[in-house]
Amino acid sequence: MALIDLSKQVALGIDIGGTNTKFGLVNHRGEILSKGSIKTDNYEKVEDFIDELYRTIKPLLDEHCQDKTIEGIGVGAPNANYYSGTIEHAPNLNWKGIIPFAEMMTEKFGFPCKMTNDANAAALGEMMYGAARGMKDFIMITLGTGVGSGIVCGGCLVYGHDGFAGELGHTIVKPGGRKHWSTGSEGSLEAYASATGIVITAKKMRAEFPESMMNEYAEDEINSKTVYECAQKGDPTAIEVFRYTGQKLGEALANFVMFSSPQAILLFGGVIKAGDFILKPTKLHMERNLLPIFRGKVKLVFSELDEADAAILGASALVWENA
Amino acid sequence: MALIDLSKQVALGIDIGGTNTKFGLVNHRGEILSKGSIKTDNYEKVEDFIDELYRTIKPLLDEHCQDKTIEGIGVGAPNANYYSGTIEHAPNLNWKGIIPFAEMMTEKFGFPCKMTNDANAAALGEMMYGAARGMKDFIMITLGTGVGSGIVCGGCLVYGHDGFAGELGHTIVKPGGRKHWSTGSEGSLEAYASATGIVITAKKMRAEFPESMMNEYAEDEINSKTVYECAQKGDPTAIEVFRYTGQKLGEALANFVMFSSPQAILLFGGVIKAGDFILKPTKLHMERNLLPIFRGKVKLVFSELDEADAAILGASALVWENA
Repeated sequence: MALIDLSKQVALGIDIGGTNTKFGLVNHRGEILSKGSIKTDNYEKVEDFIDELYRTIKPLLDEHCQDKTIEGIGVGAPNANYYSGTIEHAPNLNWKGIIPFAEMMTEKFGFPCKMTNDANAAALGEMMYGAARGMKDFIMITLGTGVGSGIVCGGCLVYGHDGFAGELGHTIVKPGGRKHWSTGSEGSLEAYASATGIVITAKKMRAEFPESMMNEYAEDEINSKTVYECAQKGDPTAIEVFRYTGQKLGEALANFVMFSSPQAILLFGGVIKAGDFILKPTKLHMERNLLPIFRGKVKLVFSELDEADAAILGASALVWENA
Repeated sequence: MALIDLSKQVALGIDIGGTNTKFGLVNHRGEILSKGSIKTDNYEKVEDFIDELYRTIKPLLDEHCQDKTIEGIGVGAPNANYYSGTIEHAPNLNWKGIIPFAEMMTEKFGFPCKMTNDANAAALGEMMYGAARGMKDFIMITLGTGVGSGIVCGGCLVYGHDGFAGELGHTIVKPGGRKHWSTGSEGSLEAYASATGIVITAKKMRAEFPESMMNEYAEDEINSKTVYECAQKGDPTAIEVFRYTGQKLGEALANFVMFSSPQAILLFGGVIKAGDFILKPTKLHMERNLLPIFRGKVKLVFSELDEADAAILGASALVWENA
């Protein structure tokens, strides 16, 4: 009988963002053995991007190949499809149409490659290495430039019949509400709870309240970080920006809870730096919109993973999933 | 090697409603071999109810026991918990608190007993015998006095961490909207899309439009059936009642699709008798609220199961589930 030495197995995790692509070799414990990055938007052709990725990563693989086995490649990317291994019509990437990315990677690297979208990868990372360890039912919400989500039910990621499940950022929280800058939909969660949405809310509110500290900043300096700074200094208008955002987010979360009854909702991404300014109103409005049988049961927590590494860890977790 | 003869296996399916409890012996093909019912609300004590159920069902069991094996009991009931086999604080039943119903049934009948809520049971029935055969991802919405739901992801019912997942009728479709008569929540799907909600909408609209045919009925005659009759005769106000209901339902369905990306949504219950008056606006408003990647992909269909039998079939399907 041959026992498998798990400590010798590593996975290559790759996170493709609109600007940067980060990668790392990760072991079963979630330790990143080496990592690096290349610029995503430098490459007009996906073939050139993969060539450069290979050139950069090959030396790392060679180094670790000596005493470890590379089990596979996991990729988190916008609009990536788990079933087909393709990236489909990703608005923030140079490569248009439907790209057979996983196949191209396997051909180049010689390892099996699995893909999913970035938020699903983040959820897997939390389940494997983070705040969701041991949980079978939770929802991960990523609050960044956009709002993404990864949903785990009964221990498995929910992919849906076509691989595109978990687009909670695009659910409508206020019918006829704020128009989304890119999808055109009215009143979606992303239009309010993303960093982009917070900027819109902040600009509106500072115009209404001339005494707000937010008016000390230039138009292009208003972002969730500067709004947070004003809130910390006690500016009631800036505090109201987060309260309003938290209300919309909390109302949406209540609906999600009544869908899949998760044990926890994990929040992740730049927006959570606002801490209690956003967490408290979110929790309040989630609870008040829940049926009594759901109240007081759902943990609402921030991600435990280091933001810089979470995407790599999550992508690598794809390799271990169902393994 | 002993082959199991599936044709010899039967399951006892029981559907507990607020007024009537229906039961039947069902085989693997979804054929009901015998059936019957007792009054639920005649029994103040759950023990007396179970005694009467046993007295009524025992002769059927004895009859079929001769040449078949009873594999178990499946029960669909309001507020039933799959994990614990309990009925918890069901507002429409006489028995208050938390009732260890499955345990009591097993003790009385001598067969294993599994339970879930009525809408989950209906979803299982559709998956086993109805329009969802072969589907791994679909959502069942029951439009009756209330709005219930059963969600199937990756071939499994979504129960959530506590067994209470799938309360889609209580998700908020219009924040600050119509107050729910029982939960007190504002703007829930059930407040609009249930038979009860339709009556509220119809009464409001007929007051606004004195020329509506709906005004020919007495106050207590207004229900989804009479509104349907007026719509069929071409009354624009009655048609608008269903259009408005369909809009709210369609908006809610769009959000559900972006959660779990199902292959189909199955509608079931008395309200669907309104046919295209409700189906067409529902489909329109679902589609227009979806992200493009989801559009034109989700089948929106009516249940194929006979309404009188569906609940029994669904409950019996619990016995075969994961068997």
